[in-house]
Amino acid sequence: MRYELYYWPGIQGRGEYVRLALEEAGADYTDAARTERGMAAMMRMMEARKGTPPFAPPFLKAGKLVIGQTANILLYLGSRHGLAPKPEAGRLWVHQLQLTVADLVLEIHDTHHPLGPSLYYEDQRAPAKKRSEEFWNARAPKYLGYFEGLLKGNGGSYLTGRRLSYVDLSLFQIVEGLRYAFPNRMRAFERNIPGLIGLHDRVAARPHIKVYLASDRRIAFNEEGIFRHYKELDL
Amino acid sequence: MRYELYYWPGIQGRGEYVRLALEEAGADYTDAARTERGMAAMMRMMEARKGTPPFAPPFLKAGKLVIGQTANILLYLGSRHGLAPKPEAGRLWVHQLQLTVADLVLEIHDTHHPLGPSLYYEDQRAPAKKRSEEFWNARAPKYLGYFEGLLKGNGGSYLTGRRLSYVDLSLFQIVEGLRYAFPNRMRAFERNIPGLIGLHDRVAARPHIKVYLASDRRIAFNEEGIFRHYKELDL
Repeated sequence: MRYELYYWPGIQGRGEYVRLALEEAGADYTDAARTERGMAAMMRMMEARKGTPPFAPPFLKAGKLVIGQTANILLYLGSRHGLAPKPEAGRLWVHQLQLTVADLVLEIHDTHHPLGPSLYYEDQRAPAKKRSEEFWNARAPKYLGYFEGLLKGNGGSYLTGRRLSYVDLSLFQIVEGLRYAFPNRMRAFERNIPGLIGLHDRVAARPHIKVYLASDRRIAFNEEGIFRHYKELDL
Repeated sequence: MRYELYYWPGIQGRGEYVRLALEEAGADYTDAARTERGMAAMMRMMEARKGTPPFAPPFLKAGKLVIGQTANILLYLGSRHGLAPKPEAGRLWVHQLQLTVADLVLEIHDTHHPLGPSLYYEDQRAPAKKRSEEFWNARAPKYLGYFEGLLKGNGGSYLTGRRLSYVDLSLFQIVEGLRYAFPNRMRAFERNIPGLIGLHDRVAARPHIKVYLASDRRIAFNEEGIFRHYKELDL
C-alpha cells in the first residue's frame, strides 16, 4: 500500500515526525500536498462534510483510512512498521512519550507565537521574548531533563525497550530543530543532555535517515515552520 | 480492578476528562491524590528513575500499568468500557478527535497564560487580554465550528457513530468550562453551536453523570484550573 501524507508544503512542521517514521520504515509514500493538485485535494479533505475530515494537517491516507493528529498517525504506523512495541503496555508507553513530545513542540511553537497562531510574529515580538526566556529557564530543562533521565534509566541507547521507536526519531528532530532555532542557547544547554545528543547522532547515522536527510525530500528549516530562528529570541 | 487516578487535588483540570469517563462507565476508582498520602505517592511516581514515570498528571494506575497523558488514558479506558468503537478505524477516529480537544484545552489555558505556565497570571495580564481576544475571534469559532459540523454530519446525537464515546463527554466539559470562564462571550457565542449545546445537555442528563455532577467528587471550577474566570478577559 502506498501511503499519502498530507501536510503544508514548504515546511517541516508537524509533518516531519511522520516523514521520519515513514523514511526509517522504508515505507512507500508520497508527500501529496507538495503539488498544486495535491494541495487542493488536502483542502477538500479538510472541508468534507462526511467521513472523518481532519481539523488540520498532517494527516495520512492509508487505503480507505484518513488519520489525523501527528501522534495518532505514529500510533498507527508504529505497530505496522516495527517502530513501536506490539504489546499494549509498551505501545501505550511509547504513545504517551510521543504525546509529551507533542506538548513540547507546542511550547516551542509558542516561543515565537505566545499570543496565538492567528497573529504574525511581528505583532508579538515583546511577549515572544518573554516566553522564550521562560522556555529556556523552566520548560526546556524540565522536558529535556525528563527525556534525558528516561534514556539513562533505559540503558542509554533508546528511550524505551531495546529497539528504536518513533519517539527516538522525534527526539532527533527536537535536537535538530532547537539547534536551528536557538543556536546560542542550545550550545550552552547541550552539556546537560549528553544522552539525547548521542541519540540524535545515532539516529542521523541510520542508513535510511542519512539518505533522507541528504535528499530533497527533507525540506530545509525556515521561518514559516515550528522551529524559527529569530536572533532576538536567541541570546 | 480498582483504578487509581492521580491528579492535582483541588482542580478539575485535565483530570476531569478522565473522571467523566470513569463515572459514565461506573468504573471502580479512587481519586488517589486527594489525600496527603496519595499526593506524596503521586510525586514519588513522577520522580521514579525506573519503569514508566509520567511527565505530569493526570495518570492512571491500572493494575501494574501506569498510563499518562489524558488522551492516552482515554484510549485505554475507551476500549475497555464501551466508550469508544472496538474496530481500529473508529478507535483511531475517536482518539484523533480527543487529541483535537486536547489542543483546544491548551489554547483555552493559554488565554490566561500566554507567556507560559511558569509565570503567574498577574504577570501576564496584558498579553492574556490580547490572546483571549484572538481566541474568541479566530480559534473558538474554528474549533467549535469543526465539532458542530461533525455532530451535524453524524446525525446530531453523538460526535461519532451511534453511541456515546469519551469525546462526547469531553465536549460536555468544554461547554461547561467556557460558560464558567467566559459567561458573557459564551452567551453571545452559543447561538452558533446549537448542536454542541444539545449534546452538553444530553450528557448532563445521563444517570451516572447527573449523580456525579451533584456529588462532592465533582470539584467546583476555580481560578487554579484550566478554565478561569477573570472579568477583564470576558467582555
